[in-house]
Amino acid sequence: DDQFEIGKEKAKVCMTCHGENGISSIESYPNLRGQKMTYLITSLKSYQSRERSGGLAVLMHQQADALSEQDMEDISYYYSTLGSDNSN
Amino acid sequence: DDQFEIGKEKAKVCMTCHGENGISSIESYPNLRGQKMTYLITSLKSYQSRERSGGLAVLMHQQADALSEQDMEDISYYYSTLGSDNSN
Repeated sequence: DDQFEIGKEKAKVCMTCHGENGISSIESYPNLRGQKMTYLITSLKSYQSRERSGGLAVLMHQQADALSEQDMEDISYYYSTLGSDNSN
Repeated sequence: DDQFEIGKEKAKVCMTCHGENGISSIESYPNLRGQKMTYLITSLKSYQSRERSGGLAVLMHQQADALSEQDMEDISYYYSTLGSDNSN
């Protein structure tokens, strides 16, 4: 569907760390494949607002800062759908 | 293996929100099944240190406060292994 394709395009920047398929290659980085959409949006907003800090969170601060609310929804839709029957 | 069984026992308290099988039934709560072990440990420590705050993080503060470092490792091992060939 449209949002999946749009999200996939916007998620290209995420793939370096979180994997092409949403399974990260590094133990410190979470897998995003099939994660809950609402949780993903909340997490991105928490990085943007600095309510998540410490450790590697700083890596996500700059990423989240670059995202609009619509970007966050599209990217979260993409990852929540990835691996389900609605993705291809 | 032993740590899987120990972790499973300690993770019973997590299952109410994160699901019997590590797939949560609520959109705001993350799935934990197959998540990276190092990431899970870091997340638990971030809740304990209040480096994760805001939103629903308060729910995890009290949970994380109750866990020892060994508990965090065992629980994280359990969820990271769940769904892989090493789990049953």
